[in-house]
Amino acid sequence: MKTWSLAAAALLACGPAAAQFKSPDDAVEYRQGALAVMGHHFGRIGAMASGKAPFDAKAAQADADLVLTLSRLPWSAFVEGSDKGDTSAKPEVWSQPDKFKAASAKFQDAVVKLSATAAKATRADDLKAAFGATADTCKSCHDDFRKKH
Amino acid sequence: MKTWSLAAAALLACGPAAAQFKSPDDAVEYRQGALAVMGHHFGRIGAMASGKAPFDAKAAQADADLVLTLSRLPWSAFVEGSDKGDTSAKPEVWSQPDKFKAASAKFQDAVVKLSATAAKATRADDLKAAFGATADTCKSCHDDFRKKH
Repeated sequence: MKTWSLAAAALLACGPAAAQFKSPDDAVEYRQGALAVMGHHFGRIGAMASGKAPFDAKAAQADADLVLTLSRLPWSAFVEGSDKGDTSAKPEVWSQPDKFKAASAKFQDAVVKLSATAAKATRADDLKAAFGATADTCKSCHDDFRKKH
Repeated sequence: MKTWSLAAAALLACGPAAAQFKSPDDAVEYRQGALAVMGHHFGRIGAMASGKAPFDAKAAQADADLVLTLSRLPWSAFVEGSDKGDTSAKPEVWSQPDKFKAASAKFQDAVVKLSATAAKATRADDLKAAFGATADTCKSCHDDFRKKH
Protein backbone atom coordinates (compact mmCIF):
# COMPACT_ATOMS: atom_id res chain seq x y z
CA MET A 1 0.00 0.00 0.00
CA LYS A 2 1.38 3.41 -0.94
CA THR A 3 1.73 6.33 1.45
CA TRP A 4 -1.17 8.26 -0.03
CA SER A 5 -3.37 5.21 0.34
CA LEU A 6 -2.42 4.90 3.97
CA ALA A 7 -3.33 8.53 4.52
CA ALA A 8 -6.67 8.05 2.82
CA ALA A 9 -7.28 4.87 4.79
CA ALA A 10 -6.59 6.78 7.98
CA LEU A 11 -9.06 9.46 6.94
CA LEU A 12 -11.62 6.87 6.00
CA ALA A 13 -11.42 4.37 8.77
CA CYS A 14 -9.68 5.65 11.86
CA GLY A 15 -9.76 8.42 14.38
CA PRO A 16 -12.89 9.96 15.84
CA ALA A 17 -15.23 8.38 13.30
CA ALA A 18 -14.24 4.83 14.27
CA ALA A 19 -14.47 5.74 17.93
CA GLN A 20 -18.09 6.75 17.41
CA PHE A 21 -19.16 3.15 16.86
CA LYS A 22 -19.38 0.63 19.66
CA SER A 23 -18.33 -2.21 17.40
CA PRO A 24 -17.86 -3.06 13.71
CA ASP A 25 -21.38 -4.57 13.72
CA ASP A 26 -22.75 -1.30 15.08
CA ALA A 27 -21.06 0.53 12.21
CA VAL A 28 -22.52 -1.91 9.68
CA GLU A 29 -26.01 -1.45 11.11
CA TYR A 30 -25.58 2.32 11.00
CA ARG A 31 -24.39 2.57 7.40
CA GLN A 32 -26.95 0.02 6.17
CA GLY A 33 -29.69 1.96 7.95
CA ALA A 34 -28.62 5.27 6.47
CA LEU A 35 -28.28 3.76 2.98
CA ALA A 36 -31.66 2.01 3.22
CA VAL A 37 -33.57 5.13 4.29
CA MET A 38 -31.70 7.22 1.74
CA GLY A 39 -32.38 4.71 -1.02
CA HIS A 40 -36.02 4.72 -0.11
CA HIS A 41 -36.41 8.49 -0.44
CA PHE A 42 -34.27 8.49 -3.56
CA GLY A 43 -36.63 5.87 -4.98
CA ARG A 44 -39.59 8.14 -4.29
CA ILE A 45 -37.97 10.87 -6.38
CA GLY A 46 -37.33 8.31 -9.10
CA ALA A 47 -40.97 7.22 -9.05
CA MET A 48 -41.99 10.84 -9.63
CA ALA A 49 -39.33 11.40 -12.29
CA SER A 50 -40.49 8.33 -14.20
CA GLY A 51 -44.19 9.10 -13.85
CA LYS A 52 -44.85 6.04 -11.67
CA ALA A 53 -45.95 8.38 -8.87
CA PRO A 54 -47.70 11.71 -9.29
CA PHE A 55 -45.37 14.72 -9.18
CA ASP A 56 -45.53 16.58 -5.88
CA ALA A 57 -43.10 19.49 -5.67
CA LYS A 58 -43.16 19.67 -1.88
CA ALA A 59 -42.61 15.91 -1.48
CA ALA A 60 -39.82 15.91 -4.08
CA GLN A 61 -38.03 18.66 -2.20
CA ALA A 62 -38.52 16.94 1.17
CA ASP A 63 -37.26 13.64 -0.25
CA ALA A 64 -34.23 15.33 -1.83
CA ASP A 65 -33.46 17.16 1.42
CA LEU A 66 -33.52 13.85 3.28
CA VAL A 67 -31.31 12.23 0.66
CA LEU A 68 -28.89 15.15 1.00
CA THR A 69 -28.77 14.86 4.79
CA LEU A 70 -28.37 11.09 4.71
CA SER A 71 -25.82 11.14 1.87
CA ARG A 72 -23.21 12.46 4.31
CA LEU A 73 -23.61 9.69 6.88
CA PRO A 74 -22.61 6.22 5.70
CA TRP A 75 -18.98 6.85 4.81
CA SER A 76 -17.55 7.28 8.30
CA ALA A 77 -19.03 3.90 9.20
CA PHE A 78 -16.81 1.83 6.88
CA VAL A 79 -14.49 1.43 9.84
CA GLU A 80 -11.67 -1.06 10.17
CA GLY A 81 -12.99 -4.56 10.91
CA SER A 82 -16.45 -3.86 9.49
CA ASP A 83 -15.67 -5.83 6.32
CA LYS A 84 -16.95 -8.96 8.07
CA GLY A 85 -20.36 -10.12 9.18
CA ASP A 86 -23.67 -9.01 7.70
CA THR A 87 -22.26 -6.69 5.06
CA SER A 88 -22.29 -6.53 1.28
CA ALA A 89 -19.24 -4.28 1.18
CA LYS A 90 -16.46 -5.65 -1.01
CA PRO A 91 -12.88 -5.79 0.34
CA GLU A 92 -12.10 -3.06 -2.22
CA VAL A 93 -13.69 -0.51 0.15
CA TRP A 94 -10.67 -0.98 2.35
CA SER A 95 -8.04 -1.97 -0.24
CA GLN A 96 -8.86 0.96 -2.58
CA PRO A 97 -9.83 3.69 -0.10
CA ASP A 98 -9.00 6.57 -2.45
CA LYS A 99 -11.19 5.15 -5.18
CA PHE A 100 -13.99 4.52 -2.68
CA LYS A 101 -13.69 8.03 -1.29
CA ALA A 102 -13.81 9.48 -4.81
CA ALA A 103 -16.90 7.41 -5.63
CA SER A 104 -18.72 8.55 -2.51
CA ALA A 105 -17.70 12.17 -3.22
CA LYS A 106 -19.07 11.89 -6.75
CA PHE A 107 -22.35 10.63 -5.35
CA GLN A 108 -22.53 13.39 -2.77
CA ASP A 109 -21.87 16.02 -5.44
CA ALA A 110 -24.66 14.58 -7.55
CA VAL A 111 -27.01 14.69 -4.55
CA VAL A 112 -26.23 18.37 -3.95
CA LYS A 113 -27.31 19.04 -7.55
CA LEU A 114 -30.38 16.83 -7.17
CA SER A 115 -31.42 18.74 -4.08
CA ALA A 116 -30.98 22.11 -5.81
CA THR A 117 -32.95 20.79 -8.77
CA ALA A 118 -35.78 19.42 -6.63
CA ALA A 119 -36.05 22.75 -4.81
CA LYS A 120 -37.13 24.49 -8.03
CA ALA A 121 -38.78 21.62 -9.92
CA THR A 122 -42.29 22.34 -11.14
CA ARG A 123 -42.90 19.12 -13.06
CA ALA A 124 -41.67 15.53 -13.14
CA ASP A 125 -39.48 16.12 -16.18
CA ASP A 126 -37.44 18.67 -14.23
CA LEU A 127 -36.22 15.87 -11.96
CA LYS A 128 -35.16 13.42 -14.66
CA ALA A 129 -31.60 14.53 -15.50
CA ALA A 130 -30.47 15.10 -11.91
CA PHE A 131 -32.10 11.88 -10.75
CA GLY A 132 -30.46 9.92 -13.57
CA ALA A 133 -27.05 11.46 -12.93
CA THR A 134 -27.29 10.57 -9.23
CA ALA A 135 -28.49 7.03 -9.99
CA ASP A 136 -25.42 6.59 -12.22
CA THR A 137 -23.14 7.42 -9.29
CA CYS A 138 -25.01 4.90 -7.08
CA LYS A 139 -24.63 2.18 -9.70
CA SER A 140 -21.00 2.91 -10.38
CA CYS A 141 -20.12 2.74 -6.66
CA HIS A 142 -22.22 -0.40 -6.16
CA ASP A 143 -20.57 -2.09 -9.16
CA ASP A 144 -17.13 -1.50 -7.70
CA PHE A 145 -17.73 -1.73 -3.97
CA ARG A 146 -20.86 -3.77 -3.24
CA LYS A 147 -21.20 -7.52 -3.60
CA LYS A 148 -23.91 -8.76 -5.92
CA HIS A 149 -26.97 -10.09 -4.09
CA MET B 1 -62.48 -1.39 17.92
CA LYS B 2 -64.12 2.02 18.33
CA THR B 3 -64.66 4.52 15.53
CA TRP B 4 -61.91 6.86 16.73
CA SER B 5 -59.50 3.95 16.81
CA LEU B 6 -60.36 3.05 13.25
CA ALA B 7 -59.77 6.63 12.20
CA ALA B 8 -56.41 6.67 13.93
CA ALA B 9 -55.53 3.31 12.40
CA ALA B 10 -56.36 4.72 8.99
CA LEU B 11 -54.12 7.70 9.63
CA LEU B 12 -51.36 5.47 10.91
CA ALA B 13 -51.36 2.62 8.49
CA CYS B 14 -53.18 3.35 5.27
CA GLY B 15 -53.35 5.78 2.39
CA PRO B 16 -50.37 7.42 0.74
CA ALA B 17 -47.92 6.35 3.46
CA ALA B 18 -48.58 2.66 2.87
CA ALA B 19 -48.40 3.20 -0.88
CA GLN B 20 -44.89 4.59 -0.46
CA PHE B 21 -43.51 1.18 0.50
CA LYS B 22 -43.06 -1.60 -2.01
CA SER B 23 -43.88 -4.26 0.58
CA PRO B 24 -44.29 -4.72 4.33
CA ASP B 25 -40.66 -5.93 4.48
CA ASP B 26 -39.57 -2.72 2.76
CA ALA B 27 -41.43 -0.72 5.40
CA VAL B 28 -39.77 -2.73 8.19
CA GLU B 29 -36.33 -2.14 6.71
CA TYR B 30 -37.08 1.58 6.39
CA ARG B 31 -38.30 2.11 9.94
CA GLN B 32 -35.54 -0.04 11.44
CA GLY B 33 -32.97 1.90 9.43
CA ALA B 34 -34.34 5.26 10.55
CA LEU B 35 -34.55 4.13 14.18
CA ALA B 36 -31.02 2.67 14.12
CA VAL B 37 -29.39 5.79 12.70
CA MET B 38 -31.45 8.00 15.01
CA GLY B 39 -30.56 5.87 18.03
CA HIS B 40 -26.93 6.09 17.09
CA HIS B 41 -26.86 9.89 17.01
CA PHE B 42 -29.01 10.06 20.11
CA GLY B 43 -26.44 7.84 21.81
CA ARG B 44 -23.68 10.25 20.85
CA ILE B 45 -25.53 13.04 22.63
CA GLY B 46 -25.96 10.77 25.64
CA ALA B 47 -22.25 9.99 25.67
CA MET B 48 -21.54 13.72 25.84
CA ALA B 49 -24.25 14.35 28.44
CA SER B 50 -22.85 11.62 30.68
CA GLY B 51 -19.22 12.65 30.21
CA LYS B 52 -18.30 9.43 28.39
CA ALA B 53 -17.38 11.53 25.36
CA PRO B 54 -15.92 15.04 25.37
CA PHE B 55 -18.51 17.80 24.93
CA ASP B 56 -18.49 19.28 21.44
CA ALA B 57 -21.15 21.94 20.93
CA LYS B 58 -21.09 21.69 17.14
CA ALA B 59 -21.31 17.89 17.18
CA ALA B 60 -24.11 17.94 19.76
CA GLN B 61 -26.12 20.29 17.60
CA ALA B 62 -25.47 18.26 14.44
CA ASP B 63 -26.45 15.04 16.23
CA ALA B 64 -29.62 16.64 17.63
CA ASP B 65 -30.54 18.01 14.20
CA LEU B 66 -30.17 14.54 12.72
CA VAL B 67 -32.26 13.04 15.52
CA LEU B 68 -34.91 15.68 14.86
CA THR B 69 -34.99 14.96 11.12
CA LEU B 70 -35.07 11.21 11.64
CA SER B 71 -37.63 11.35 14.46
CA ARG B 72 -40.33 12.16 11.90
CA LEU B 73 -39.68 9.15 9.66
CA PRO B 74 -40.39 5.78 11.23
CA TRP B 75 -44.08 6.20 12.05
CA SER B 76 -45.52 6.09 8.55
CA ALA B 77 -43.76 2.77 8.04
CA PHE B 78 -45.80 0.81 10.58
CA VAL B 79 -48.06 -0.15 7.71
CA GLU B 80 -50.63 -2.88 7.67
CA GLY B 81 -49.02 -6.31 7.31
CA SER B 82 -45.65 -5.16 8.64
CA ASP B 83 -46.28 -6.82 12.00
CA LYS B 84 -44.71 -10.00 10.62
CA GLY B 85 -41.21 -10.98 9.62
CA ASP B 86 -38.03 -9.45 10.95
CA THR B 87 -39.64 -6.97 13.30
CA SER B 88 -39.66 -6.38 17.05
CA ALA B 89 -42.87 -4.40 16.91
CA LYS B 90 -45.55 -5.73 19.26
CA PRO B 91 -49.09 -6.33 17.96
CA GLU B 92 -50.11 -3.40 20.19
CA VAL B 93 -48.72 -1.01 17.54
CA TRP B 94 -51.70 -1.99 15.42
CA SER B 95 -54.23 -2.89 18.14
CA GLN B 96 -53.67 0.34 20.12
CA PRO B 97 -52.94 2.84 17.35
CA ASP B 98 -54.02 5.90 19.36
CA LYS B 99 -51.72 4.98 22.22
CA PHE B 100 -48.88 4.32 19.79
CA LYS B 101 -49.47 7.61 18.01
CA ALA B 102 -49.49 9.44 21.35
CA ALA B 103 -46.23 7.74 22.38
CA SER B 104 -44.51 8.68 19.13
CA ALA B 105 -45.83 12.25 19.43
CA LYS B 106 -44.45 12.50 22.97
CA PHE B 107 -41.07 11.36 21.71
CA GLN B 108 -41.11 13.83 18.82
CA ASP B 109 -42.01 16.67 21.19
CA ALA B 110 -39.11 15.73 23.44
CA VAL B 111 -36.77 15.69 20.45
CA VAL B 112 -37.86 19.20 19.43
CA LYS B 113 -36.86 20.36 22.92
CA LEU B 114 -33.61 18.40 22.79
CA SER B 115 -32.72 20.01 19.48
CA ALA B 116 -33.46 23.51 20.83
CA THR B 117 -31.39 22.70 23.92
CA ALA B 118 -28.44 21.35 21.93
CA ALA B 119 -28.45 24.47 19.75
CA LYS B 120 -27.54 26.63 22.74
CA ALA B 121 -25.65 24.15 24.93
CA THR B 122 -22.24 25.31 26.04
CA ARG B 123 -21.34 22.39 28.31
CA ALA B 124 -22.28 18.74 28.80
CA ASP B 125 -24.53 19.48 31.77
CA ASP B 126 -26.78 21.60 29.55
CA LEU B 127 -27.74 18.47 27.61
CA LYS B 128 -28.60 16.27 30.58
CA ALA B 129 -32.23 17.16 31.31
CA ALA B 130 -33.40 17.23 27.69
CA PHE B 131 -31.48 14.05 26.89
CA GLY B 132 -32.98 12.28 29.91
CA ALA B 133 -36.50 13.45 29.11
CA THR B 134 -36.15 12.17 25.55
CA ALA B 135 -34.68 8.86 26.70
CA ASP B 136 -37.70 8.40 28.96
CA THR B 137 -40.04 8.70 25.98
CA CYS B 138 -37.94 6.12 24.07
CA LYS B 139 -38.10 3.68 26.97
CA SER B 140 -41.78 4.17 27.58
CA CYS B 141 -42.64 3.52 23.91
CA HIS B 142 -40.27 0.53 23.75
CA ASP B 143 -41.80 -0.95 26.93
CA ASP B 144 -45.26 -0.82 25.43
CA PHE B 145 -44.63 -1.42 21.75
CA ARG B 146 -41.33 -3.26 21.25
CA LYS B 147 -40.68 -6.90 22.02
CA LYS B 148 -37.86 -7.60 24.44
CA HIS B 149 -34.71 -8.85 22.73
